Amino acid sequence: MPFITVKNIEGKTPEEKRVLVQKMTKLVSETFEVDPNLIFIFFEDLAKDNYGKQGELFSYLKE
Amino acid sequence: MPFITVKNIEGKTPEEKRVLVQKMTKLVSETFEVDPNLIFIFFEDLAKDNYGKQGELFSYLKE
Amino acid sequence: MPFITVKNIEGKTPEEKRVLVQKMTKLVSETFEVDPNLIFIFFEDLAKDNYGKQGELFSYLKE
Amino acid sequence: MPFITVKNIEGKTPEEKRVLVQKMTKLVSETFEVDPNLIFIFFEDLAKDNYGKQGELFSYLKE
Amino acid sequence: MPFITVKNIEGKTPEEKRVLVQKMTKLVSETFEVDPNLIFIFFEDLAKDNYGKQGELFSYLKE
Amino acid sequence: MPFITVKNIEGKTPEEKRVLVQKMTKLVSETFEVDPNLIFIFFEDLAKDNYGKQGELFSYLKE
Repeated sequence: MPFITVKNIEGKTPEEKRVLVQKMTKLVSETFEVDPNLIFIFFEDLAKDNYGKQGELFSYLKE
Repeated sequence: MPFITVKNIEGKTPEEKRVLVQKMTKLVSETFEVDPNLIFIFFEDLAKDNYGKQGELFSYLKE
Repeated sequence: MPFITVKNIEGKTPEEKRVLVQKMTKLVSETFEVDPNLIFIFFEDLAKDNYGKQGELFSYLKE
Repeated sequence: MPFITVKNIEGKTPEEKRVLVQKMTKLVSETFEVDPNLIFIFFEDLAKDNYGKQGELFSYLKE
Repeated sequence: MPFITVKNIEGKTPEEKRVLVQKMTKLVSETFEVDPNLIFIFFEDLAKDNYGKQGELFSYLKE
Repeated sequence: MPFITVKNIEGKTPEEKRVLVQKMTKLVSETFEVDPNLIFIFFEDLAKDNYGKQGELFSYLKE
């Protein structure tokens, strides 16, 4: 505990995810006072065609 | 708000998803009286090998 | 009902998933006394680069 | 199919949710050309203390 | 691994859930050949007002 | 983006969650180089009767 899911637009590299896992585990362990070995992190990569906001599919938005 | 997840068998095209985002955003905005810019929609495409119903894996079902 | 999600490291074959669907549907149907035709099972395959535990990305762990 | 989850700040009444179920089922059935009897909708009510945005817990935001 | 979520209409007792945890852990451990100590099971209790099917809110259905 | 879900055993106070929202938003914003105003965090409080590990319901475990 806890189990953390990070849903993000696809594109982050394994190295970037690795850094986030290291830092987020430390942060949650210290803030919630839990054993870092009991913290699990899942990434969900979201394709631009699978994400809609402001009434439009993200892949059609000019961002 | 709200955050809406649509989990469906894979196969819908970006255009079909786009139409659903447009219509669903309008519907939820009007029904729940929320700002359409605060509505987020996520699609989860489910492979036929990753879905089981009636005690069988969907890819083995005669549908 | 119920709707069951099995999130697991990627690698299980359709046949292995099929066996689990068959057995899990039977188990849940008997234990919770529900109609097996109303039990839905979803698999989520987790890439090793999308899973962090013990402060490390799974793909970097020596397991 | 599909299975739709609507995660929203708590406060909507059963009647409001009922209207959304009726309209959303019709919309998805027509747009995705699926049998309305195969569409499932789940609501997740989010407490203001369980939602953070703009770096702040929602219950502390002046909205 | 794996992480299993069981979303069900509210009403099952802790004892019933306990039996399912015991049996499901054994089943998944044997079928997927994984260490039972690495299997996590989460229950999500769904209120009848938070579940829609067949175009109707479950609490309004005659079941 | 991203949307982060923190599923944890119930018991953390709003103040503790608030601190985690503040720190996690900053961390993710810096690590993933995203606008902090586009980061959303959801907490899911897990009752001890709704969590199973090591083949046992958490509420029956001596921890």
